[in-house]
Amino acid sequence: MTGPSGAGKTTLSRRVMAEQPDVTFSVSYTTRPARTGEVDGVDYHFVAAEEFERRLADREFLEHARVHGNLYGTHGPQVRDRVGAGGVVLLDIDVQGARQVRASGIDAVFLFVLPPSQAELERRLNQRGTDSADVIARRLGIAQREMAEAPWFHYLVVNDDLERATGDFLAVVRAERVRRALPAVCRSLDLSFS
Amino acid sequence: MTGPSGAGKTTLSRRVMAEQPDVTFSVSYTTRPARTGEVDGVDYHFVAAEEFERRLADREFLEHARVHGNLYGTHGPQVRDRVGAGGVVLLDIDVQGARQVRASGIDAVFLFVLPPSQAELERRLNQRGTDSADVIARRLGIAQREMAEAPWFHYLVVNDDLERATGDFLAVVRAERVRRALPAVCRSLDLSFS
Repeated sequence: MTGPSGAGKTTLSRRVMAEQPDVTFSVSYTTRPARTGEVDGVDYHFVAAEEFERRLADREFLEHARVHGNLYGTHGPQVRDRVGAGGVVLLDIDVQGARQVRASGIDAVFLFVLPPSQAELERRLNQRGTDSADVIARRLGIAQREMAEAPWFHYLVVNDDLERATGDFLAVVRAERVRRALPAVCRSLDLSFS
Repeated sequence: MTGPSGAGKTTLSRRVMAEQPDVTFSVSYTTRPARTGEVDGVDYHFVAAEEFERRLADREFLEHARVHGNLYGTHGPQVRDRVGAGGVVLLDIDVQGARQVRASGIDAVFLFVLPPSQAELERRLNQRGTDSADVIARRLGIAQREMAEAPWFHYLVVNDDLERATGDFLAVVRAERVRRALPAVCRSLDLSFS
């Protein structure tokens, strides 16, 4: 899942995971210090830069990115294990991360979440009240560059109505599961129907 | 939608259309005489063999098949018009028909509906009470040959539980719509976000 800051990815993914408990976030590694209330191994795996670099050199990360000077990475084996066990792992990543996941060849579904309009995106970013005008302007610039990549994604969900967007997202998860079940069902049929 | 006789395609598609009224059946052309209660233009377009052959020669049919000596065909322009208007047209066709639709290059989703097991398929065919043992044996043979083609379909829905199968089917319809909306949304974004 990718989308500009302010598209509503966090709210949307919480709704999806509440409806479908076997859809879970992967716990990323980061060199960013833990904030108050954040738990190591739950919110993130908080590691020193040296450990991150070592894991990166060992190709442990499905994707990684530097954001505001901190490194963030998705642990490949963790994702593959959970997918291998029949789970769905949701990654909240930026366009660069999505490109890396695509290049990894892992069987992933790429979903782009969009705000309903530029005006609404600005309103949402302003509404947070935590960011300066400079930060908001920079985020809008990033958003425009990110959205230019939307055409290569598999699905695009416009988050203008949370109910509809959640329904679309859940339908994508369910349909993609049905699609992936086909080979196994066919194999089992060779037994049942032979 | 394809699947062996007895897989429950009729019940399943009725449930899907009840939940999603803009999913509609195409009205096929047939040379079979109308049965009591069947309405021309609603259940089928009942036509003489000559008219069917003329339409076939004019390449009007997206797919056609001969079943028990009668011809059945799906009217291509009718399907394309409804899809062009944003609708979803559901075709209840056999494997040969599905192959023809695939060969036509139309943007279609191929969904195979399966009974939960060979035993359950036999039970369902027997339960109808209208068919002789010979007819049932022939249908089972056809079913086995049809199921050998399931691997090339996009989706396979095992109709062991009608609720779950309906939910899977509806998720496929919704997700495929989200997928197809992507180019149009991207085009509209070039306006909104430029």
